[in-house]
Amino acid sequence: MKTYIGIDLGGTNIRVAKITEDGKVLQQIKSPSYGAEGRERVLENLKKLVRQIDGWEECSGMGVGVPGPCDQKTGSMSMSTNLPGFTGYPFADDLSKEFGMPAYIENDANVAGLAEAVVGAGKRLSVVEYVTISTGIGGALIVDGKVVSGKHGYAGEIANIIIDRDRGTYNHLAPGAVENEASGTAITRKGRELLPEMNIRHAGQVFDLAAEGNEIAQKIADAAIADLAQLFATLAAVADPDIFVLGGGMMKSADKFLDQLIEKYKEITHTALHDTPFVIAQLEEPGIIGAAMVPRSHEG
Amino acid sequence: MKTYIGIDLGGTNIRVAKITEDGKVLQQIKSPSYGAEGRERVLENLKKLVRQIDGWEECSGMGVGVPGPCDQKTGSMSMSTNLPGFTGYPFADDLSKEFGMPAYIENDANVAGLAEAVVGAGKRLSVVEYVTISTGIGGALIVDGKVVSGKHGYAGEIANIIIDRDRGTYNHLAPGAVENEASGTAITRKGRELLPEMNIRHAGQVFDLAAEGNEIAQKIADAAIADLAQLFATLAAVADPDIFVLGGGMMKSADKFLDQLIEKYKEITHTALHDTPFVIAQLEEPGIIGAAMVPRSHEG
Repeated sequence: MKTYIGIDLGGTNIRVAKITEDGKVLQQIKSPSYGAEGRERVLENLKKLVRQIDGWEECSGMGVGVPGPCDQKTGSMSMSTNLPGFTGYPFADDLSKEFGMPAYIENDANVAGLAEAVVGAGKRLSVVEYVTISTGIGGALIVDGKVVSGKHGYAGEIANIIIDRDRGTYNHLAPGAVENEASGTAITRKGRELLPEMNIRHAGQVFDLAAEGNEIAQKIADAAIADLAQLFATLAAVADPDIFVLGGGMMKSADKFLDQLIEKYKEITHTALHDTPFVIAQLEEPGIIGAAMVPRSHEG
Repeated sequence: MKTYIGIDLGGTNIRVAKITEDGKVLQQIKSPSYGAEGRERVLENLKKLVRQIDGWEECSGMGVGVPGPCDQKTGSMSMSTNLPGFTGYPFADDLSKEFGMPAYIENDANVAGLAEAVVGAGKRLSVVEYVTISTGIGGALIVDGKVVSGKHGYAGEIANIIIDRDRGTYNHLAPGAVENEASGTAITRKGRELLPEMNIRHAGQVFDLAAEGNEIAQKIADAAIADLAQLFATLAAVADPDIFVLGGGMMKSADKFLDQLIEKYKEITHTALHDTPFVIAQLEEPGIIGAAMVPRSHEG
């Protein structure tokens, strides 16, 4: 069976693993990534770790999940806030030359979506839309087992989908962007504003209060659920996926909102789209498994 | 050079053509489609027309563009308002057996988008988003020269993308659906409401009045342009296409709104996405050429 090197490179930590073509982790090494110390230090460390993998030379390719959009034409990051020095650097070429095998870089949400599409909840399906809802909202569109990256590597960057452009602007995102209306951070913000006495620290508390009968919390939850339903209806209109795979921290509260979200989704979509399954992500390590699946997805 | 049979089957007319793999029409026949007379009559006529094409036996495959979404797993229409009797009928299988070649059916907007993606404005690009704005709003997502059809054949059915769910409901579409806010029909409707003395018959008149300094017409145009900008920003967030290809009757007024639309688009998208080209569709016959490209797109 073929094996691949999967690398999950964040600003703080890096994990390097040898993974089979069907997604089994054979060996894994974890280390600080030294992101703050600049590109040379990060690359030196990454390359040393790859050489610590038993039989890395036998692997058929290498994929790196990175925290930001990637330009696939140049194999470089388009934006690398958490990895200073990497914007525009020919990262994939460097690794390919160093290790003598095909090497790719890809946005971490796209990589997680790819893992779910090829060995997780979306296995064997043609169009998989992965949506992760935690502090932010991210996504990935996977078609026939390949990530759709897009012209600038921004495909799947669904945080900026506008729910209602008459709502507020909070940051670099567009007015009324879904991430500022229905992410964990947004629900927490609304909870703090409207329930100042409750010491809200995370979205789960708002869902818990709603379940206990708190009407204000219920209104916050209802609004976020309706906004998320609109997001999923939009994704269905663009790509009509075979499955929605849902990841991210907010899925810990899925029992408190997912059924209601699906009902709202049905209210605003064509009947034909009502049977699209909403499924919680299955993999514990989608980041590193997905990274290893990137070179596989580029074969033949 | 390989050739294919392309068929553009509407409720009223049918065109059948022999087309080269690079999109040249070698022979074309037009006829009524007899859509209202039921499936048997439509199929009998279609099959007779195919046999009138010189050397149809040498063609490598056949594609039919039809007015409605298609389930690619069964090769049947999911909904066929303008072709009674075709919903669920194994159309592709029937043709494949009849003519002994691979046969496919595909939604007419998807087919037009495919034509633009492989031999038109999006030639050689990886991700092409085709958007047609006329009486309605339709679209197609083409990735690596293949139509993304989706689970139910509804990918690209972007008419139902919600711009603002607090706006009106006019028909089967969701409240605030973009087709009811910014299509030719919607702009005409608003023109009739707000400029009753002007005898508005089509959207072009509203754009013309705006260009002549009519402030009410300008407000209608501005609102529609902002809504369309939001649609394109949404499409960019989901798929980050290499190009937006714009078709449909409203492009006749493109000089009166397209520059402004692109400016609005830039206001609500990340800087990285600002260089995505907006290009008017190039092909005169995208329907029939695109139909012929469907079997080509399924080859290896």
